[in-house]
Amino acid sequence: MKRIAVLTSGGDCSGMNAAVRAVVRAGLAMQVDVIGIYKGYQGLIDRLYENMTTKSVSNVLQRGGTFLQSARCLEMKTEAGLRLATDNLKGMGVEGLIVIGGDGSLNGGYAIHQQGVPVIGIPASIDNDIPFTDMSLGVDTALNNIVAAVDNLKDTASSHDRAFVVETMGRGCGYLAVVATIASGAEFSLIPEEPYDLEQICEDLRRRYREGRSNSIILVAEGAGKAQDIADQIKDKIGFETRVIVLGHYQRGGSPTVFDRLLAARFGQAAVENLLKGNHGKMVGLQSADIKLTDLEKVVNAESRPIDPMLPQLANRLSV
Amino acid sequence: MKRIAVLTSGGDCSGMNAAVRAVVRAGLAMQVDVIGIYKGYQGLIDRLYENMTTKSVSNVLQRGGTFLQSARCLEMKTEAGLRLATDNLKGMGVEGLIVIGGDGSLNGGYAIHQQGVPVIGIPASIDNDIPFTDMSLGVDTALNNIVAAVDNLKDTASSHDRAFVVETMGRGCGYLAVVATIASGAEFSLIPEEPYDLEQICEDLRRRYREGRSNSIILVAEGAGKAQDIADQIKDKIGFETRVIVLGHYQRGGSPTVFDRLLAARFGQAAVENLLKGNHGKMVGLQSADIKLTDLEKVVNAESRPIDPMLPQLANRLSV
Amino acid sequence: MKRIAVLTSGGDCSGMNAAVRAVVRAGLAMQVDVIGIYKGYQGLIDRLYENMTTKSVSNVLQRGGTFLQSARCLEMKTEAGLRLATDNLKGMGVEGLIVIGGDGSLNGGYAIHQQGVPVIGIPASIDNDIPFTDMSLGVDTALNNIVAAVDNLKDTASSHDRAFVVETMGRGCGYLAVVATIASGAEFSLIPEEPYDLEQICEDLRRRYREGRSNSIILVAEGAGKAQDIADQIKDKIGFETRVIVLGHYQRGGSPTVFDRLLAARFGQAAVENLLKGNHGKMVGLQSADIKLTDLEKVVNAESRPIDPMLPQLANRLSV
Amino acid sequence: MKRIAVLTSGGDCSGMNAAVRAVVRAGLAMQVDVIGIYKGYQGLIDRLYENMTTKSVSNVLQRGGTFLQSARCLEMKTEAGLRLATDNLKGMGVEGLIVIGGDGSLNGGYAIHQQGVPVIGIPASIDNDIPFTDMSLGVDTALNNIVAAVDNLKDTASSHDRAFVVETMGRGCGYLAVVATIASGAEFSLIPEEPYDLEQICEDLRRRYREGRSNSIILVAEGAGKAQDIADQIKDKIGFETRVIVLGHYQRGGSPTVFDRLLAARFGQAAVENLLKGNHGKMVGLQSADIKLTDLEKVVNAESRPIDPMLPQLANRLSV
Repeated sequence: MKRIAVLTSGGDCSGMNAAVRAVVRAGLAMQVDVIGIYKGYQGLIDRLYENMTTKSVSNVLQRGGTFLQSARCLEMKTEAGLRLATDNLKGMGVEGLIVIGGDGSLNGGYAIHQQGVPVIGIPASIDNDIPFTDMSLGVDTALNNIVAAVDNLKDTASSHDRAFVVETMGRGCGYLAVVATIASGAEFSLIPEEPYDLEQICEDLRRRYREGRSNSIILVAEGAGKAQDIADQIKDKIGFETRVIVLGHYQRGGSPTVFDRLLAARFGQAAVENLLKGNHGKMVGLQSADIKLTDLEKVVNAESRPIDPMLPQLANRLSV
Repeated sequence: MKRIAVLTSGGDCSGMNAAVRAVVRAGLAMQVDVIGIYKGYQGLIDRLYENMTTKSVSNVLQRGGTFLQSARCLEMKTEAGLRLATDNLKGMGVEGLIVIGGDGSLNGGYAIHQQGVPVIGIPASIDNDIPFTDMSLGVDTALNNIVAAVDNLKDTASSHDRAFVVETMGRGCGYLAVVATIASGAEFSLIPEEPYDLEQICEDLRRRYREGRSNSIILVAEGAGKAQDIADQIKDKIGFETRVIVLGHYQRGGSPTVFDRLLAARFGQAAVENLLKGNHGKMVGLQSADIKLTDLEKVVNAESRPIDPMLPQLANRLSV
Repeated sequence: MKRIAVLTSGGDCSGMNAAVRAVVRAGLAMQVDVIGIYKGYQGLIDRLYENMTTKSVSNVLQRGGTFLQSARCLEMKTEAGLRLATDNLKGMGVEGLIVIGGDGSLNGGYAIHQQGVPVIGIPASIDNDIPFTDMSLGVDTALNNIVAAVDNLKDTASSHDRAFVVETMGRGCGYLAVVATIASGAEFSLIPEEPYDLEQICEDLRRRYREGRSNSIILVAEGAGKAQDIADQIKDKIGFETRVIVLGHYQRGGSPTVFDRLLAARFGQAAVENLLKGNHGKMVGLQSADIKLTDLEKVVNAESRPIDPMLPQLANRLSV
Repeated sequence: MKRIAVLTSGGDCSGMNAAVRAVVRAGLAMQVDVIGIYKGYQGLIDRLYENMTTKSVSNVLQRGGTFLQSARCLEMKTEAGLRLATDNLKGMGVEGLIVIGGDGSLNGGYAIHQQGVPVIGIPASIDNDIPFTDMSLGVDTALNNIVAAVDNLKDTASSHDRAFVVETMGRGCGYLAVVATIASGAEFSLIPEEPYDLEQICEDLRRRYREGRSNSIILVAEGAGKAQDIADQIKDKIGFETRVIVLGHYQRGGSPTVFDRLLAARFGQAAVENLLKGNHGKMVGLQSADIKLTDLEKVVNAESRPIDPMLPQLANRLSV
């Protein structure tokens, strides 16, 4: 291969810039041209791209988000759009494509792969719901954002004996909520993967209140319920007032942690290396400390990554 | 005086611990006993207190919130409660009281002063609405919290050309919102002190959108409207989708900034010094780089601190 | 005026980017062209410059250092160099110049002003040694960097009952060291403005050691001695081992604090406004919460900003 | 078992408090008393201990260092000291001991185990040199500290085209230096595990200088040389001036990252669980995402953890 391309797609996360940098620098070190495509698949269709140099990726490593930008692209889901994207890649002289993103983005990558273009996917999604990788890009930074916010709330919670319900991202996946519970020393976590008993939680809140520990923090993954609803139900059941905070997009951004920067470097370089070796139609993933490849076909057809049952158990045990 | 007391009251903020530490250490250095009263005025009524030593305040300087805790206390607003509080102070042998808190707390301090107990107030409130001080304790830390969050959001905003409406604290006072606008480079700020024209904002959003700059950030002080309402109205008027984030109690906590730690040290030591010198019934305040005293009577009867019109003008000019 | 220029010079500091952004945006808002000169006075001599647009300064506000870069320039101290710089400004059609930097940089600005080019200076120097301004740009960020490092060291100091000598910047000025002492709760500060008695410090260390408080932290401004020398002398005198850390350039960088971003905005806009009004040959400064102008002639001929004696007194009192 | 004890020993690191908390809370949840021993093995000899309750470990999770403190203890290396320590444990009614620390601390734990007391070790050391665990406690926080400092330096490096030599911890182990190089985008890393060619580095610096990229950052693990020596040699060889910073104890402290907090929770609970199950004389370790046990005998007799050769290769490739 003489020329490859890279794009970021779907929800942005910290570490995308570091991954693009790694792709560009690894590519240049291996004597291939690297094209950066702007605005994800939309930019592929609209032919928004630029040749990447060392300088294009200087000073981006430490920045959140993605300088290549991202965008929704409904057109890619049509046959015409897909064909146009593929034709454009060929028109640019691109022989291989690296896609950095979540579920939907990897789906798009798989579709392009099926059109005969070599593709490698890099999993990036703060929810940590992508299968066949222990960690996706952006998860560690998001966790540190969440826990920094909960640390702040605990100052107020302890000062006022006040309880908080905190809503984290995670529509289908409670990873962020449950790890943040363990890491922040929060008292309860509600996640979509496990049923929860609000009666029992209210009972516990009451007991803690009697013991003089009314400064509880409850983390809710968005897929397990709206924080406001949980707070309202607690109010109804036991008359106990809680404050609500929805962390929202605050979780995504910020300078990536070392974990995410290192993961980005490893993913980026592995993606380029495998693309050049002819191992494509694959996603790179972190499996037990090593970077392993999984067929994109398998990735896009698999269920979301399940939560390790050890995590909710640990959260539960340490919050007693 | 041989013995003084200190309490924190009202909404907690970063720097309260540093101020308590300064009061204790300055007191001890001047050979006075210092009593720490827990849970604000409620603790004064319930006689929750402890003698403070150097060790009581070691390792608290860098922590948010207040280790003396705070609480609402309706009883203090009754004559009986006020008398009990005053009697308790005398019963503890306390000859002077330092109150760290916002409006309501200073009111309580003034009431105790009127009962003949020497009182000094230290202004602490993240809203920066207390008159006769350029800055209250906790404002600078809150601002840095807000701007850190907006910096995160800007990563996503730039990555996706997306607009955000961010709600800050500030019921009657837009200081946080307007300074955070200048400091984060946000595009618009809505504050309770100034009328705003949502039509004009929509017009500007449309213009910016045409210019390819759709990643706007709008800061709203809670007193100027609910973020969700603003977002809904923008949606209705121009069909432009914005994301909403309500920063809530995240703004309060966290390790205090150097500005707040220094202010806490200056306020704490000035409070003790003046109490011992017989200058009481006063609030300490920062006025043009100096610590000045204002009669509590004047403070509690004054309007909220007005916003310097230079600030919204500056925000406006730099966002063009 | 139709066209003005801006440059950053001398040691970089956080907030320079924010000030350049403010100059550019305020200039554009007032319908003047703004030229950015790269690499300080050297760039003026070498004609390294670019026309600034809104986009040139997007996403720089939150970044440390200066994207316009800075450099030493010995040539500016020669008559030929000065004339070339001035001629180049005229050649670019520049009618006014804004210089962001410290002592030496303001000297250069004054020299250009004397050649008949309207100049405004913006004080930027982490040492806070520039006279006629309460705070220079970059000081607040540097202080927060220092105190974050000392907070880290205190974790180790408390865990091991260990003492540290920490060297901060400040050749002629102990502001950083003394404010960081107050803000971090360090025990001792050695500054160039005040004589210190190492015998007395050793005596205090010994007393503290006997009281079981051997985790002392000593801050030394570089102008008051080398941290390693202080540590060696303490070792010699009382056999007490201390660890040494020289914070060096770590202090300069990092995302600017809100204080520095706001100051940058105010300085930048005031500089442009006054340049256009014809008030030049001046430095903008923060004096008692207001932006005031001082003649550059007066600034460059004045002594360094003296330290407020209240600060070492406060440091001393609270460390007892 | 009815009663177990926990101590922290050796150099402190972030996450120790979180691990103690996990041990205490897991112990209480499993109905065992937990004794906290102060000042490491010295406290075991001097009988400095306290019964731990939920409250003893509240608000410590987010704090760096170790509230149980640590200390050097030469006495433990004598037979008499070891016997006294063991007798004291029995005297306290302690049936099992959890030791949190590095090499030397695990050696001490193994010695106590050989005296017939059930012991479990938790690896904690910022160097990441302990074998049989992918990561030790404190490594991730130290890395983030280092990279935050290097991010600051890069602001100055880019502003001034200046090179820095940065010394990290790591006497026998270059893990911190090499990962920080990848994560910060530094240009060179010198580590004790691999020979380096200073001539070649000087050659590269010269080439980069010619290409206009003179803002290089060189990370040196302390075991690979003193930063000042490296800088002096570069100066001698090519006349190129570099600034030096020795990060020292700044690396150790600070609020632990989520990674370290989660690892602490997992290590702490696994330690208690295995102690109670009778699996002792072991160290818990992170091996490929799982917590695994290794005999302490094997740990103390093994070589330091070798560096994964992929890391220096990756650092090298991305810095081109």
